[in-house]
Amino acid sequence: MHRFYIDSSAEGCDEITITGDDVVHITRVLRLGEGDEIIVCDCVGYDCLCKVVRTCKDEVTAKVQSREKNNAEANIDITLYQGVPKGDKLDTVVQKCVELGAVRIVPVAMKRSVAVIKDPAKKAQRLQKIAHEAAKQCGRARVPRVDCVMSFADALSDASGADLRLLPYEAEKMSSIKNVLRQSNDVKNISIFIGPEGGFDPSEVELAKDRGFSVVSMGPRILRTETAPLAAITAVMYELGDW
Amino acid sequence: MHRFYIDSSAEGCDEITITGDDVVHITRVLRLGEGDEIIVCDCVGYDCLCKVVRTCKDEVTAKVQSREKNNAEANIDITLYQGVPKGDKLDTVVQKCVELGAVRIVPVAMKRSVAVIKDPAKKAQRLQKIAHEAAKQCGRARVPRVDCVMSFADALSDASGADLRLLPYEAEKMSSIKNVLRQSNDVKNISIFIGPEGGFDPSEVELAKDRGFSVVSMGPRILRTETAPLAAITAVMYELGDW
Repeated sequence: MHRFYIDSSAEGCDEITITGDDVVHITRVLRLGEGDEIIVCDCVGYDCLCKVVRTCKDEVTAKVQSREKNNAEANIDITLYQGVPKGDKLDTVVQKCVELGAVRIVPVAMKRSVAVIKDPAKKAQRLQKIAHEAAKQCGRARVPRVDCVMSFADALSDASGADLRLLPYEAEKMSSIKNVLRQSNDVKNISIFIGPEGGFDPSEVELAKDRGFSVVSMGPRILRTETAPLAAITAVMYELGDW
Repeated sequence: MHRFYIDSSAEGCDEITITGDDVVHITRVLRLGEGDEIIVCDCVGYDCLCKVVRTCKDEVTAKVQSREKNNAEANIDITLYQGVPKGDKLDTVVQKCVELGAVRIVPVAMKRSVAVIKDPAKKAQRLQKIAHEAAKQCGRARVPRVDCVMSFADALSDASGADLRLLPYEAEKMSSIKNVLRQSNDVKNISIFIGPEGGFDPSEVELAKDRGFSVVSMGPRILRTETAPLAAITAVMYELGDW
């Protein structure tokens, strides 16, 4: 069933009003009308099974049939800091990482990032749309946020509040992500840094180490920049999340 | 460094001769010649650091500098049986699953597979090439095999010898892949079945259950057909493999 997000709580509501881009999507793209069922996910993580009662140009009104907790959000918040890759790889990374359960994705301009994001706001907007669609498709209770591209230094500062900060690095042979995760108790939020195509510059790894990051290996096979975040998020969800 | 595979053991060899398609790749695409270094991976899992000594139209001869065990193969053999998806998703699945460590990939025509592989032999050949390139890129000791498309019934029989057979299913709420993997000891080879875009048909799930498959969940978020195999292989490598 089609899923839509609203910015308010639907607690105690008999009817829900949907406005904005979703109106066109519901009425013109999906051609839904009176009597059709949709799921409206409210801002406090509840899925409302609704029946469309009225549509007009600017809003869709739906009657709430039932309201129940959405359980598709893990008890752990993962923020991915992705080194800007080439081409449309960032699109794929955003889509897949939303499916796998990340709550926030931050593109990071790293030393070896070849691609340059020319219009950061526009790019973030586009990626946010991909995140929105992915969240709908996989049944998330909330839409993960995609930030504008950051510098590596800013990303380090941004991540400083996380309970655990991971940096998977192909040159790391001693410390595995598995050992680090298994030794992590009471972790509520995790930051994961992933290098771009050429990997991290060693100076970036040193800087992150100095700031208390755990530099880890993810097995002996070298993962591509767009594969590594998926593997890292899967590992976290498997060990500490809701798998 | 560029990696090439040969079908023989290089044990005790002073020189290695490379023939076939790789000759064009080495001489014309990469424009390598006398004195350039390459890695030649032999059929018994050793990486030979070599220096090119001669090139001609049909072969490249390289002198072995050193030979050491390649450790990029896990102690667990994973075969992925992937429900045929739409478009070029199979290409992505093959590439990523090789990176993550699968040893064999079998496309399976499932009830809900919309796409039909018109020329199975040609498709397998194309996917095998993708597997070859992915193996080179991520440093594998061997090139995983890609089979021709199979029927669901044939795939079930094909997988019957595996120590553990997993079927991740979005409707499964009780048994998690994590619990199953944690209870699996002495497992050397695993078969993983992944449904196509519309998921498995319930009759396929029942059939697999009857044959002793473990039907498992991979968290509460619905993963796309091309994301699910990556997550499943990561979980296996994390729990039982070489992470």
